[in-house]
Amino acid sequence: MSVCESYFPSEPTAPVVVTQSQGPNSKKAAESLGKVFDSRAAYFVADYAKSIGNYIVDVDGNTYLDVYAQIASIPLGYNNPKLIEVAKSDKMTSAIINRPALGMFPGADTEEIIADLLKVAPKGQDKVWSGLSGADANELAFKAAFMWYQAKKRGYASPFSAEESESVMKNQSPGSPELAILSFERSFHGRLFASLSTTCSKPIHKLDFPSFNWPKAQFPAYKYPLDANEAANKEEDARCLVIVENLLKGWHCPIAAVLIEPIQSEGGDNHASAAFFQGLRYLTLKYGSLLIIDEVQTGVGATGTFWAHEHFNMSPPPDMVTFSKKLQSAGYYFHDPEIIPNQPIRQFSTWCGDPARMILAGAIGKEVVEKDLTKQAARVGDYLYAKLESLAAKYPDYMADLRGKNRATYIAWSFKDASFRNKFLADMKAVGINVGGCAEDSVRLRPTLVFEWKHANILVTAMEKILSSY
Amino acid sequence: MSVCESYFPSEPTAPVVVTQSQGPNSKKAAESLGKVFDSRAAYFVADYAKSIGNYIVDVDGNTYLDVYAQIASIPLGYNNPKLIEVAKSDKMTSAIINRPALGMFPGADTEEIIADLLKVAPKGQDKVWSGLSGADANELAFKAAFMWYQAKKRGYASPFSAEESESVMKNQSPGSPELAILSFERSFHGRLFASLSTTCSKPIHKLDFPSFNWPKAQFPAYKYPLDANEAANKEEDARCLVIVENLLKGWHCPIAAVLIEPIQSEGGDNHASAAFFQGLRYLTLKYGSLLIIDEVQTGVGATGTFWAHEHFNMSPPPDMVTFSKKLQSAGYYFHDPEIIPNQPIRQFSTWCGDPARMILAGAIGKEVVEKDLTKQAARVGDYLYAKLESLAAKYPDYMADLRGKNRATYIAWSFKDASFRNKFLADMKAVGINVGGCAEDSVRLRPTLVFEWKHANILVTAMEKILSSY
Repeated sequence: MSVCESYFPSEPTAPVVVTQSQGPNSKKAAESLGKVFDSRAAYFVADYAKSIGNYIVDVDGNTYLDVYAQIASIPLGYNNPKLIEVAKSDKMTSAIINRPALGMFPGADTEEIIADLLKVAPKGQDKVWSGLSGADANELAFKAAFMWYQAKKRGYASPFSAEESESVMKNQSPGSPELAILSFERSFHGRLFASLSTTCSKPIHKLDFPSFNWPKAQFPAYKYPLDANEAANKEEDARCLVIVENLLKGWHCPIAAVLIEPIQSEGGDNHASAAFFQGLRYLTLKYGSLLIIDEVQTGVGATGTFWAHEHFNMSPPPDMVTFSKKLQSAGYYFHDPEIIPNQPIRQFSTWCGDPARMILAGAIGKEVVEKDLTKQAARVGDYLYAKLESLAAKYPDYMADLRGKNRATYIAWSFKDASFRNKFLADMKAVGINVGGCAEDSVRLRPTLVFEWKHANILVTAMEKILSSY
Repeated sequence: MSVCESYFPSEPTAPVVVTQSQGPNSKKAAESLGKVFDSRAAYFVADYAKSIGNYIVDVDGNTYLDVYAQIASIPLGYNNPKLIEVAKSDKMTSAIINRPALGMFPGADTEEIIADLLKVAPKGQDKVWSGLSGADANELAFKAAFMWYQAKKRGYASPFSAEESESVMKNQSPGSPELAILSFERSFHGRLFASLSTTCSKPIHKLDFPSFNWPKAQFPAYKYPLDANEAANKEEDARCLVIVENLLKGWHCPIAAVLIEPIQSEGGDNHASAAFFQGLRYLTLKYGSLLIIDEVQTGVGATGTFWAHEHFNMSPPPDMVTFSKKLQSAGYYFHDPEIIPNQPIRQFSTWCGDPARMILAGAIGKEVVEKDLTKQAARVGDYLYAKLESLAAKYPDYMADLRGKNRATYIAWSFKDASFRNKFLADMKAVGINVGGCAEDSVRLRPTLVFEWKHANILVTAMEKILSSY
């Protein structure tokens, strides 16, 4: 019996299409929801009680194979029985109703909860600071980087000067120094003000918001297929690393950290080589900046290693690794004790994370490891990738730049333009497959970790049906 | 039977002191926790399974009457049976394990969950946008304010210019305009980058972080007792309103919103009059800024009205009211449809809040309303305030500027200096009362809403014992 079958003996065997998407009930529910909440972006209204495994059910009874999975956020399928157990446990109940101010009044079980979260820490990381979302995780990492940078300048144990303490109350330097985070064009790191200052995806994400004047380097833009374009892509790596180096040397203020996704996801599933990441690691060490890897979307098994950057063999490992989404909790992993601020209550908030979500994260990590779901994702992904490669050969006008080889199910491809891509996404929903886009013209697959061979077959069959009709 | 007795028939009748605080087990647990988490700020390690009602128990068996309540975040006491019921419900289980991307795939129960949250909306507010923490709530409100401000300038339905769309990708104006949020000296609005740019509490909260150059006005600094200083305090209101008006008129960039706490809490429990808030309302209307009231700490019954700003009879009501802490969820309430961005996916994130926490918020609101706990807090607070007034008369050296009359249990007073205050906080722990400070020299009471007359007596008796020993 497969892992998925053992979790979900009654998972549907195929999508069921009852109405168009969105159907009349969805439409009515979304309109009604609109009275109290902004529901304009709702694709459909889901019935989570009926959703199971890889299938999401809507209020019209449509049953979709879900390869979008709440924007890459469902790790173990809907209504996973192991997670139901955890959710019903007394430990969870207490975490929900007795939410502690974790920094001041940690609980007797706090150490265990955090230790469980550390069991899936990336190689080389052994500490964690917890937050509440991907954007929050990145901004907490920025705070750690800025404190680290200034401590390095001032001396870790040195006191703040009177001038620093006075000026900071006016949001002025030297207490509030001008420091930057370097990120990349087409990146997505969240939508709070500092994280949005690093995000560089689409204008609509950023318009009308004040921002920090922080530099953007260029992320490699590879030619596909990779094996036929090795030399050109190597040059592209070199070109982009020069840009990074020039910014590290020449930006008008110090760059405390470089922030990058292992695969730019929202920005179009843009990949870069191990050599490029190793080059970044070299440059950050050379110029005294931290390297922060944003694994909010790429983390937790989806690329065939538990953390995507583990494909790159960076040495030493990145200084901080941020997480959220599939881990259902958020924060950053790190190793260097000097990334802990020199005084308590500097990296701080009332809640310092959510133990309820951290308990769930620990349980998810445990299941992924015990059931070896990362390796399974790799095997299913290889199988799926080969099928998609054949489809791409057959329908080259609709499947350009297939990417994600050897990255498990973390697969994407491009259409000619946005309108074709959007038509494809809608057509897929119409045959019962919920799939998402990225950038303007691409499709990204983000199934759960219990997505198996049979689901891959259903996906490919549906795609062929649609592509052959174009 | 009192509400507290009906919830907690086995609540302790008095604090139990077994060891000093922190005791040997707490010390050991905090040290061990320190290997995986920053536990330097831990007062003690709590045993939440054993904590009940108004009493928090630590791992040494010390049982404290808790008038700090996780920095004002526990509404209905530890292990409240009604909340246990909610935490164990299938609705909660689904919200925990099937966490939706709420904007794209809302659930069939989303409308009900949000409608429950709206049942306790401040007067005049009928919509809500949800976030994850107080800082997040404020920053989401800032985003709403900036979009509103620019839409007013550009026209709500007008398209973005090509220049805006290009410049914003470089974090430059006009796409990323220079706009400000006006806040007040001594305020606390959270610790992410934009919220921290409005926070003006202590240097240690702000040092080393880049910030936005946003203006700070002065919050009234009243003379106490209030009834003996009416004329002087009225002048203080006028003085501070002039500062606000000058900033609204003369700051180097437009001020999209004014942000203020009804009572500055972290900053020292600084109160301002209804007239001052009415004046702010007038000025924000006059100069075309939104008024955001930060009720993260003051909200949910603690001041004798469900929302503290309802004491001030502002007309029209504030444009946005942010919440978190005791409501266990976070976000902003609002009314004006033009505060909804002109396009979807502008106020957005993967999760758009946490339905699990929102379900809890709805249940908390329902209990507070059904059990009339706001009114009870007012009655208990009046009783407690009178007793503290007598104590203050007897120990004027240790209880200056008693504040919070007619504000239920939201009471504070000042010591001569930080060292005396800190000694008092430690001495209180030593007799089994967990109480918190604010500013450098003040003590703030932040009990739950099930804090009753008998608990007030225990608190006052303990205080008298300590103050009489000085």
